[in-house]
Amino acid sequence: MAQEIERKFLVADDSWRTPEALASGVAMRQGYLCRDKARTVRVRLAGGRGTMTVKGATEGFSRLEFEYEIPAEEAADMLEKLALRPLVEKVRYRVPAAAPAGAFWEIDVFEGENAGLIVAEMELPDEAAVFERPAWLGREVSRDPRYFNSNLLAHPYCAWKEEERGGQ
Amino acid sequence: MAQEIERKFLVADDSWRTPEALASGVAMRQGYLCRDKARTVRVRLAGGRGTMTVKGATEGFSRLEFEYEIPAEEAADMLEKLALRPLVEKVRYRVPAAAPAGAFWEIDVFEGENAGLIVAEMELPDEAAVFERPAWLGREVSRDPRYFNSNLLAHPYCAWKEEERGGQ
Repeated sequence: MAQEIERKFLVADDSWRTPEALASGVAMRQGYLCRDKARTVRVRLAGGRGTMTVKGATEGFSRLEFEYEIPAEEAADMLEKLALRPLVEKVRYRVPAAAPAGAFWEIDVFEGENAGLIVAEMELPDEAAVFERPAWLGREVSRDPRYFNSNLLAHPYCAWKEEERGGQ
Repeated sequence: MAQEIERKFLVADDSWRTPEALASGVAMRQGYLCRDKARTVRVRLAGGRGTMTVKGATEGFSRLEFEYEIPAEEAADMLEKLALRPLVEKVRYRVPAAAPAGAFWEIDVFEGENAGLIVAEMELPDEAAVFERPAWLGREVSRDPRYFNSNLLAHPYCAWKEEERGGQ
């Protein structure tokens, strides 16, 4: 059993877009076979690699996570033929974090129906871990279900009202 | 992409229960993370091995199938913490088939809420394949959704009316 501890934030400005950060971008295409509150099953195709990921319900900043590498052609097949619609498309950039040592910010720039949405995530070793908050970091949305990737399918960012998007 | 072609039958009598057949029994515990009509995600623990299996909708005798071996402890964890209730428990026996060459009947003897139900399945190389029908083979239920493992959860055999069980 793996336990995932993740903090998620909006992005306040573009100062994270250094040449190094932009060079790290990987296009991702993902979809869900299941997006219940209690469990999600995600298929992802990213940089020629396929993964299938099962996650439990979010409790605090934590949730159960099981991830398996699968053949890229099979991931593409499942996305095309079995995944719930629409698919989520985004480009993920990696920005080294000053703390904790070795940590990265993963900055997801959404496309398609979620275009305009940018979120920054960090995985942490435990819930109490101290992490650096860079100048471009916006409001925390870790516990806001609207920003769960699985919910961005049913309620894409393009359909949010102006006042819902606020607080970047 | 794998395509699964499967024929499923009731079992008319106990003549399949030879000492060799009984010695082949493997206890299986399985549950579903998802059991939509269009896609199912199954986690199974059998003989110390864990598997995760994604299947599409049944079309005729065929359906899409993707199967991955996963660590047994993770399968047990998902069954305990994430799978829909109730779990399906059964013992699977293998009986060699006279045709096609190398084929086996898989005979599932259900336990728990589906106790009393016994089905025999054979995987075939193509929809037109000719296969032997042994004397113990009962009525075909390949296209009867009540016998899909994913539906035996919501409508277990113990809740079926007497007349629904008929025709063995």
